[in-house]
Amino acid sequence: MTRPTMEVLSDDKCIDLLHQVPVGRIAVTVDALPVILPINFAVVDGAVVFRTPAGTKLAAATTRAVVAFEVDSYEAAGRSGWSAMVQGVATEVTDLAGLRRIEAAAIDSWALDGAADHVIRIELHRVSGRRFTG
Amino acid sequence: MTRPTMEVLSDDKCIDLLHQVPVGRIAVTVDALPVILPINFAVVDGAVVFRTPAGTKLAAATTRAVVAFEVDSYEAAGRSGWSAMVQGVATEVTDLAGLRRIEAAAIDSWALDGAADHVIRIELHRVSGRRFTG
Repeated sequence: MTRPTMEVLSDDKCIDLLHQVPVGRIAVTVDALPVILPINFAVVDGAVVFRTPAGTKLAAATTRAVVAFEVDSYEAAGRSGWSAMVQGVATEVTDLAGLRRIEAAAIDSWALDGAADHVIRIELHRVSGRRFTG
Repeated sequence: MTRPTMEVLSDDKCIDLLHQVPVGRIAVTVDALPVILPINFAVVDGAVVFRTPAGTKLAAATTRAVVAFEVDSYEAAGRSGWSAMVQGVATEVTDLAGLRRIEAAAIDSWALDGAADHVIRIELHRVSGRRFTG
């Protein structure tokens, strides 16, 4: 078992890392249980945005709720890598100009079957991240 | 934007996938906020186990709490992949025989700086997973 070194990343570095991966994970509460779901996302207008179908538990859980969103990357053995996390209020994007800018980002909806035609935005209220070297 | 197909995975397949990656992510509540943390882990004695230093917020948050733990893998563009999630009660492993079996699994402590000399176990109470093809 190694004793890795850990480096705390700056907010700017965390936001930079958010641009480097296409999939992140959101933590929400569904039916009183914690849930982690992988989602395709983009950073648009200074917020994490992702698509979801209307009426789903994910949509309900991310309406005016505080959520955590995480991205990470690690080498194959899992001994070094980095992670970045956003904690913030999730809200639905409903204004036409905002939706158009998000549409231009062409976000997939990997983890969401079917017509994911609503857009949720997570403000970058709290950003944190760490880099580990094993 | 593609419309991916989604396949629900069996419990056995999810448990099989838990053995295929060295890093997963745990969702806990710390200071009333949701948190997602990447952790090295192994599956030992039919449970997800990971190491943590004593006295940390992670240690407190995983003592007799219901947590979510997630693993996933996706191709570089993020359009296809799989994810598996465990929801269960987290407890500290304190029996010597159990700790020896976990020590034999030689779990790293990537996301945990320093001496991660306590072991947390998450029962596989609820297992779920999905595979996506973009």
